[in-house]
Parts: sequence; C-alpha cells; structure tokens
Amino acid sequence: MKKKVLVVGAGGVGAYFGGRLAQSGMDVSVLCRSNYEQVKKEGFNIKSIAGDFSFKPAGVYRSCAEYPDDADYLIVTTKVLPDIDVVKIIKDAVKPGTMIVLIQNGIEIEQEVAKAFPDNELVSSIAYIGVFQLEDGKIFHQAAGRLKMGVYKGGSSEKMDLLSANFNKVNVECEAVEDIEFFRWVKLVWNTPYNPVSVLAGGVDTKVISETKALEDLCVELMKEVCAVAKSRGIHLPDDIIQKNLEYTRGFPPYKTSMLLDFENKRPLEVKAIVGEVVRIANEKKVAVPHLETVYALLSAVDIKNRY
Amino acid sequence: MKKKVLVVGAGGVGAYFGGRLAQSGMDVSVLCRSNYEQVKKEGFNIKSIAGDFSFKPAGVYRSCAEYPDDADYLIVTTKVLPDIDVVKIIKDAVKPGTMIVLIQNGIEIEQEVAKAFPDNELVSSIAYIGVFQLEDGKIFHQAAGRLKMGVYKGGSSEKMDLLSANFNKVNVECEAVEDIEFFRWVKLVWNTPYNPVSVLAGGVDTKVISETKALEDLCVELMKEVCAVAKSRGIHLPDDIIQKNLEYTRGFPPYKTSMLLDFENKRPLEVKAIVGEVVRIANEKKVAVPHLETVYALLSAVDIKNRY
Repeated sequence: MKKKVLVVGAGGVGAYFGGRLAQSGMDVSVLCRSNYEQVKKEGFNIKSIAGDFSFKPAGVYRSCAEYPDDADYLIVTTKVLPDIDVVKIIKDAVKPGTMIVLIQNGIEIEQEVAKAFPDNELVSSIAYIGVFQLEDGKIFHQAAGRLKMGVYKGGSSEKMDLLSANFNKVNVECEAVEDIEFFRWVKLVWNTPYNPVSVLAGGVDTKVISETKALEDLCVELMKEVCAVAKSRGIHLPDDIIQKNLEYTRGFPPYKTSMLLDFENKRPLEVKAIVGEVVRIANEKKVAVPHLETVYALLSAVDIKNRY
Repeated sequence: MKKKVLVVGAGGVGAYFGGRLAQSGMDVSVLCRSNYEQVKKEGFNIKSIAGDFSFKPAGVYRSCAEYPDDADYLIVTTKVLPDIDVVKIIKDAVKPGTMIVLIQNGIEIEQEVAKAFPDNELVSSIAYIGVFQLEDGKIFHQAAGRLKMGVYKGGSSEKMDLLSANFNKVNVECEAVEDIEFFRWVKLVWNTPYNPVSVLAGGVDTKVISETKALEDLCVELMKEVCAVAKSRGIHLPDDIIQKNLEYTRGFPPYKTSMLLDFENKRPLEVKAIVGEVVRIANEKKVAVPHLETVYALLSAVDIKNRY
C-alpha cells in the first residue's frame, strides 16, 4: 500500500517537495490556504530547473480535520511566524503512527511540536532550494533543491530513511544526518546576514550585496556574531564558514533572498526564526551581538510597517 | 547702508532665515537651483508657526558669479552632500570683507571652506528648526526656529554679533556661543540615531520610534556610541543627554525627520555628514561603534537605491 503523506503549507517549498514525493509513488495530499480554489481545481504547475512537472495532489484540504486518512508522514512547510501556530494547525492529523517532518527555516523550531506530540517521531529538515509561488498553483523552482534531515534530538529512524530514499529516487538529494541542529546553524550563518540585509539595504539582490563592500563587511560582522552565539551553545562551526559563504554568494547570479521576495509581496517576514532567536540566545548566554541587535530592531519595524 | 547678504541654497532653511534677515532690514539675495524660475517671479511664500510672511529677495541668481555686489555675509544653507562642493559654489562671491556663515548639519563641515578662504571670517552655525519646501517657493516652517552660531575655531566677532542681533530683532533666537563644535556634537546625538532609524525602520515618524521599544533602545545604543566618539575628541557631553533626548522626543507630536522627508522625496540623504563622519572618527580613534557601522552600511545602500 502507498505511504500516505500530508503536506501542510503548500507554497513553493511544500508544492515542490510534495510533488516530488508523489512522483516517487507516495500518496500525497496537501493543506492549502489562499491557493485552495486553484489547487483543488488544477493542482500545481511546477516550472523547475530539475524538469517541469505537474502535481495533482491525492487530496486538497483546508484544514487537518478534513483529512480523512491516517498520514504516515505529516510534512510541515509553513513559514516560521509568530502568527502560525503549527501545533494547532496539525493536531487533528497527528495520529499514533504519524511521523512529523518539519521542513522549515531557522532554529529552535522543533520544541513546541516535540512537546505537544511526545509519542510521535519528529524529524527536522532543512531545504536548500530557491522556489516560490508565482501565482496560485504556479510554482517556480529556480535554484538548488536539496534536503538534509535528522531525527530531532539525534538518533536514526527507519521511517525517516524510507522518506529520504523516496526523495533520492526522484533525484531530490536528501541526506540523513546525525546532528541536524548543526546544519541549522550552518544555514543560519548564511540566512541571518543575507536575508535581512537584502531587505534593509533598500531591496537589493545578492549580487549588489557582494559588490558593495560596506554591505558585505556588514554580512561578515553578522556572520561572526552568529558563529559566536552558536559556540555559546556548544556548536562549533567550521573556521572557514564565513569565507566560504562570501565566495559562494559572490558566485550566485543576482538572486533575491526569500525574505526580499516576502517583503516585496507584503508577506510577513521570518524575523523571529532567522534573527530574533539568535538574539534571544545571545542575550541568555551574554554574547555581544550589536550588529544583529541593530538589524533585528530595524527589521522588526520594517516587517510591521510593510504589512499594515 | 544696508548690509548685504547672499544666501546660497534657498530651500526651507535658506528661505526661512534669509527671509527673516530681510525683515530685519538687510539686503538679502538668494542663489537658487531647481526653484529659480518660481522664486525669481514671485519670491517665497512662507507659512510659519512664528507668523506667515512673504520674502521677495533683493536679487535671485543661479550662480555666485552673477551676484553683482560684495556680500557682507555669505550664508550657506545647502545640504551637506558629497556631490555639493561648497568651495566651488561660493568662490566667486567670496570677497575680501565677506563673512562666510555655514548654517548646516553634521560635523567636520568647516575645514574645506576654512582652508580655501583663510583670510575670510568663518562662522559655523546650527539651526534648530523644522522647515521644508512644499513646492518651489512655498516654504512650511512647522517647528522650533532657533540658531546657535560661533566663530570657527573659537573667539568672538563683532560682525557675527551684528548678524546675530539682526536675527534676534525679528524674533529668531540666535545665540552666539564660544564653542560651536560642542553644540554640533550635542545636535548630532539626536540626529545620528533618529534620522537614520526613521528611514531604515521602513519610514516611521518620531512617535513610532518613541513607542517602539526596540527602536528606542537602538537609538540609545547609537547615542551612546556618538557620545563615546565625541569623548575621544575631547568633547564631553552632559551625562543626561541621552535621557533628555528620549524625553524630548517622546514629547514631540508625530514628526518626520528631515532625512525621512528627503528619502520620501527621493533626494540624497546626509549620510556622510550625520553618520559617516562619526564612523570615520571612531575608526581613527579606535572607538567601537558596531550599531553605527550597521546603520551606516545600510543607510548608504538605501540612499543609492532610493535615487537610482
């Protein structure tokens, strides 16, 4: 029997990875909000650098209570925002055998889910992908497209390995790792500078940041602070991570960060997950993060001003 | 014989103070750029909290070379911007007896003028005023309206005292001070946080800043850094200056900073005069200014993005 997957949060990330799992032979349903009507009618049309495809979900729902099955995998791909209460959204679809898989940005995103569903397996996953919804149901996958996943708090899981194998079957590189938190911090070292700076510098792409010395220098300072906070948590990032990030980003074609796209579309920004949590931990651990503090204060205000 | 005044830079500040000097009985001409046609034809129409008035300049010119007289006072009220070469603009009107009076924002604004015209008296002046040009020739004076002035590098001057007396004659409070640089730094402690934050936080007025804890806290950090830089220059600001600034600003009606007005009108921002020079001195004196650095990098980028 086909394994059942329910994807909660069917924007770019959810539609893309959900669609790939459907191609791998799984039974994939989705929970939609603003794009419900369109997706219910015609499914997703996905333009992808890894090959265009259509994705017609097995079921399209507005809430977890409507989902009629017991999901083997409940994959959460919502943004990490104070207004989005993941526990509340997913609780009606979390059954005894359901594995919860969070494919989300930021750090410290797992605790509430782990606490609410202590008897369910919980997997934390990071997406390395440039993908967004152009309009309802139309997805544009423009860059990368990999995953890393790990059992929350470490260890292994056969069920997770099966999911990972299904991704790899359809050429989505998915790596199971022992210590997913480490990789969350690694990703954060990129996200925390480049996302906010792209917005706060007036709406600039990565090329402008890389070519503007003052902005790239600011990114370096922000990265140093993120590394210092990671260290205070016992996470030792590679010595060359900052230099690698600079070189990697300089090599991009002009790229708008996901936060800049959210800003331009007047959507809420992942301020807390990408900046706020780092500042919170820094304060707790007495690590000085003046550049981050400045960015956090400004970005929080910009986020509010942009939406209201 | 009437004393002759030439005002260079006839935006809000120049029109207002020039107009008041004309009321005091001086012969006031102006140098205009974008508003030349309108001012030549109809002069200035000034709506002011201290009483509305019209100001028909004695002469309206496009360049200092056109000015036919020997000015007793050449008053510079241009913005302080890298593109504006004050020495070049004023040189044709600087005659042996001309006193040069700079009514401008920022710090370190006098050196080039002093160097170019070593034989002329140089006065440095600070305006405490909320005034801007609504449209060509239409000025709106909405708040305050005082001046402090002092001989550059200290000392006194009868000629400056006469100018000051003329201002006071028409109810423009103008105080001659011994150490104008001290007051430049005092003003900077307000300007350097509130102006940039009003722009970078997404375009917010002083009320929003005062009521948003994270933004007000950021202003405090920026003020502390400005005070530390001032101290490295031997300028000791009062201990309670930060607290006073907070209280003073909380008492404002919602007020858009001049930098925010410039930003909204896509005009160049006084980034260098208000932030860059402080950072430059901090680097020179090895004072840590991480919050200022962050603001400086972002604001420089925003300024460019906003205009091109």
